[in-house]
Amino acid sequence: MLVSSQFTLSKSPAFIAFEGINGCGKTTLHKRLSAKLVASGHSVCDTREPGGTPLGIEIRKLLLEWSGEKKSSRAELLLFAADRAEHVDKVIRPNLSRGTWVLTDRFIYSTITFQGHGRGIDRQLLDQANALAIQGTVPDLVILLDLAPEEAFKRIASRNSSSRDSFEEEELAFHTRIRDGFLECAKESPVPFLVLDATQTPEELCAEAARACGLSRG
Amino acid sequence: MLVSSQFTLSKSPAFIAFEGINGCGKTTLHKRLSAKLVASGHSVCDTREPGGTPLGIEIRKLLLEWSGEKKSSRAELLLFAADRAEHVDKVIRPNLSRGTWVLTDRFIYSTITFQGHGRGIDRQLLDQANALAIQGTVPDLVILLDLAPEEAFKRIASRNSSSRDSFEEEELAFHTRIRDGFLECAKESPVPFLVLDATQTPEELCAEAARACGLSRG
Repeated sequence: MLVSSQFTLSKSPAFIAFEGINGCGKTTLHKRLSAKLVASGHSVCDTREPGGTPLGIEIRKLLLEWSGEKKSSRAELLLFAADRAEHVDKVIRPNLSRGTWVLTDRFIYSTITFQGHGRGIDRQLLDQANALAIQGTVPDLVILLDLAPEEAFKRIASRNSSSRDSFEEEELAFHTRIRDGFLECAKESPVPFLVLDATQTPEELCAEAARACGLSRG
Repeated sequence: MLVSSQFTLSKSPAFIAFEGINGCGKTTLHKRLSAKLVASGHSVCDTREPGGTPLGIEIRKLLLEWSGEKKSSRAELLLFAADRAEHVDKVIRPNLSRGTWVLTDRFIYSTITFQGHGRGIDRQLLDQANALAIQGTVPDLVILLDLAPEEAFKRIASRNSSSRDSFEEEELAFHTRIRDGFLECAKESPVPFLVLDATQTPEELCAEAARACGLSRG
């Protein structure tokens, strides 16, 4: 569900997911918000999907560095789900239960958009795989960085080429479907989505995110 | 569904799965039946789970050679499912559709028994993961080699140690649950199960399997 810029999380610690197309600035905002939480005395677990666990790092290689025959779309979906199940059980739930904030780069909404809106996998399969993986663990807040793919491409092109992954080589139309998919998730999902205009400065974005997390009320 | 020793497959090519506890003689019977099919002029694809595809070989390493922290049971289940989805899409369906017999060492019944009866994962989760992976592709015949775990352990101990995998280090009680689980699958499943007494000689076992495949009617 879309929330306004006045939204403030009612719980602490919370589980926050950053979502958006590649190049939208998730990582920068994630780092800044994490630092702000830590500076406010919170303990924070910074993580990501795929690859938030030792097993997940190996699964991530199969997902993003695979040079063999194109994978079956269901195999790919189930690898993401395996990574996510390990992540939920070993990182997300244990950290939340010991009072640590969990901030993740990507969660189920990336599967819904990349595999669904992007690659056309049936939504029911996606929902089944996600449900198997998370067993009801959903974020308290999703921060969606909304950006036009053209702008994201410019940002990516200006990065060092070593930061590229296989998804970043795909086409504009694909990423436009992903962007639209994220906005659709924001409207449809029962989870609160704070949608931020990612053309804002890193400082402005972090101020908005921090306010939603209850950090800077002034 | 249990079938009698008089059962004969009504179709050719067919999809055959070999199931049973470790050490029951699946691999030997698989090789012999495959050779007999080939000698009768059939083309045969010999495969296995996990690891029946290039991607599956990498997933198999994560499943059987993983030396890190014990995996989340759902992560393990979803890795098996990813391997299986790739196997179904890249090996099983294409071979059947080009008129080739497909003989696989293990299929969904190994997941039901090892993860379910063995490790206690909820049956509904197993069925959901299997359904996601196979999308309705089930064997025309399952050949279940039934053997007491004590006997299987003796066979394994007499093998070269390089043939051991992590499952083979587990306990008798675990494997007894697996054996019982396979017999339960044989009764419950809508798929025909030929249950063979694995204490028979390799020649006797192959003769029974070949007859069920319509090979030696004399």
